[in-house]
Amino acid sequence: MSTPLPSLDQIRDAAARIAPHAIVTPVMRNAALDAMVGAQLHFKCENLQRGGAFKFRGACNAVWSLSDEEAARGVVTHSSGNHGNALAMAAATRGIAAHVIVPDGAVRAKLEAIERAGAILHRCIATTAAREAKAAEVQQATGANLVHPYADARVMAGQGTVVLELLQQCEGLDAIITPVGGGGLSSGCSITAHGVNPSIAMYGAEPAGADDTARSLASGARVEAFTPDTVCDGLRTLIGAPNFQAMREHRVEVITVTDQESIQAMRLLWQSLKLVVEVSSATVFAAVLKRREQFAGRRVGLVLTGGNVDIDDLPW
Amino acid sequence: MSTPLPSLDQIRDAAARIAPHAIVTPVMRNAALDAMVGAQLHFKCENLQRGGAFKFRGACNAVWSLSDEEAARGVVTHSSGNHGNALAMAAATRGIAAHVIVPDGAVRAKLEAIERAGAILHRCIATTAAREAKAAEVQQATGANLVHPYADARVMAGQGTVVLELLQQCEGLDAIITPVGGGGLSSGCSITAHGVNPSIAMYGAEPAGADDTARSLASGARVEAFTPDTVCDGLRTLIGAPNFQAMREHRVEVITVTDQESIQAMRLLWQSLKLVVEVSSATVFAAVLKRREQFAGRRVGLVLTGGNVDIDDLPW
Repeated sequence: MSTPLPSLDQIRDAAARIAPHAIVTPVMRNAALDAMVGAQLHFKCENLQRGGAFKFRGACNAVWSLSDEEAARGVVTHSSGNHGNALAMAAATRGIAAHVIVPDGAVRAKLEAIERAGAILHRCIATTAAREAKAAEVQQATGANLVHPYADARVMAGQGTVVLELLQQCEGLDAIITPVGGGGLSSGCSITAHGVNPSIAMYGAEPAGADDTARSLASGARVEAFTPDTVCDGLRTLIGAPNFQAMREHRVEVITVTDQESIQAMRLLWQSLKLVVEVSSATVFAAVLKRREQFAGRRVGLVLTGGNVDIDDLPW
Repeated sequence: MSTPLPSLDQIRDAAARIAPHAIVTPVMRNAALDAMVGAQLHFKCENLQRGGAFKFRGACNAVWSLSDEEAARGVVTHSSGNHGNALAMAAATRGIAAHVIVPDGAVRAKLEAIERAGAILHRCIATTAAREAKAAEVQQATGANLVHPYADARVMAGQGTVVLELLQQCEGLDAIITPVGGGGLSSGCSITAHGVNPSIAMYGAEPAGADDTARSLASGARVEAFTPDTVCDGLRTLIGAPNFQAMREHRVEVITVTDQESIQAMRLLWQSLKLVVEVSSATVFAAVLKRREQFAGRRVGLVLTGGNVDIDDLPW
C-alpha cells in the first residue's frame, strides 16, 4: 500500500490543527546577504519553531489527527533527532506516550532534548533497516501509532504549513528552497506552493555526500541503497517513496552543495542574521550562493529548518 | 555644562525619527527558560537590530537630529565597537561622513563591520582619556559633530525607544533589565519605562569585573577611575555622568554577575532561543538566574543588546 500525498485542503486543516501549539515563525531579511546574492532573500526561521525545528509541525499534526482511542496507545518513531524531539513534544501537548528509536551516533544535544521532552528512548544501530525493525517491535508491544519522519501524509501536511505561512508573510515570491533529507518538508511545501500559485519555482538543497535525491530525480528511479557521508546530520536520510513522487510531480530542482559550502554558508548566517542555525539548514543559502546567476533579481524564500546545534562542537 | 537628560516626549520624537531606518525587533519567549526561573521572561531581541545591536537607535536619532548644515560636516565618535558601527551605518543612511576612534584591542569582527559600513577609522590606545583626546582632535580638524556613545541626550533618547517598543509588544511588565556599561541604554530605558508606568521596577546587569556603576550607586558618588576586567567587551566603559544621574533618579537596581555566570547564561540563550547574542547581552539573563527568588512570578523584560560575536573565538 503506497503512502498517499496530502492535498492543499489537508495542509490547511493541518495549519488549523497545529495553530494552538506551534509558533508562527518570523521571516527575516538582511541587506548585506541580499547584496551578496543580488536577490531578495526571505528567511523563514523554523529554527525558532518549538523544539528548534520545523519538525514540530508534522509531528503535531500527526498527534492531533489521532482518535482518542488511538492516542491512548501513544506514538512511536525512528529519528536521528529533530523529528524524535518534535514527536516527544507533540505527544506531551496531548498527554500521551512517545517512543523514540534513536540510532547510535546521533547528536548528543538532540538526544538530551528528546529525553527532556519526556519520550522513552530505544537505541539501535544506525541503519534504516535496524531503525524500522526496532520501531515495528515497539509498535507491536505497545500498539503505538507509527509516525514516520517523512513518508506519512499527516507529517507532509504539517511540514507544508511552513509555506502556507511564508506565503502569507511575503507577497510575490518567485522561488522557494528547502533542504532535502527524507523529503517530508520538500514534498509538503511543494504541494502547498503550487496549490496556491503554480508558477512558484521549487528548489531543494542537498549535501553532495547525500545526493540520493538528485541522483534519483536524474535517473527517474529512487535510489534505495546509499551510504551518506556529510556533516549535515539532519539530511543523511534517503528520500522517501511518496516524497520522491511529490518532488517529481512538482518539478523540484535539487541543487547539491559540498559540506565546505554549507559550513561557510552557516557562518555567514550566524554572523549576519544572528541566528543559530544547523549546518543542514545552511544548505539552502549555500545553494543560492552557488547558483547566484540563477537566483539574481528574484524574490526567494529560504526555509531555515532548525537550530539544534552542539555548540561545543561547531564544524569550523 | 552638564549633559541634559531626554524627556519621554523626546524619546517619542526619537522613535518617529528612527522609524524609517531601524528595525522593530521581535520579543521572544521560551517555555524552558521560564520554567528555569519561575518567571515570565520576554526577551527583546536587539541583536536582530540593524548592525546587530541596539546602538543603531541612538546613533540614528543623533544623525537625523542634525541640521543639514551640521550634517554636512559629518559625525565623530569613540567606541569599542557597536556604537562606532552604529554611527557609521546611521551616517550612511544620511549620506554623511562618520569618523570612528577605535581603541587597540577592540574585537576584530566589530572593526571589520565598522569599515564595511563606510566609516573612517582612527586608532588610539585603550584609555578613556586617549579616546576623548583623539575625538577632540578629529572634531577640530573636520567640524564633525561629536556623538558620544552614552553621555548624549540624543543617544539616550534613541536607546530609550527600545522600551517604548517593548511596552507596546508586551502588556503588564513588572520589571525590565538591561546591561549596564556607559549607561546610555539603562538611562534611556528608565526614563521611558517610568514615563509610561512609574511602577515598573528597573534593573541593570553589570559584570563583577566592571562594577563601577554598582559601586557608584552604593556610595552615591560616581567612580571615575577604575580599570575594568571582564570578558564582556561591550560593558567595559565607566558609567557616564548624566547616565548615573538618571539611574539614581529612577532607582535602577544593579545586579553584578561574574564572567562565568554570563558565559553560562550566553550558552543557555544560544541553545534555547537559537539566537547569537554577545556575552555582554547575556548578563541580563545571568542576573535573573542569580536572583531567581527576586524575579519569581514576575513578568520581566530582558533586553538582549547585541549579537556581534567573533564566532571563531567563543568564550567557552
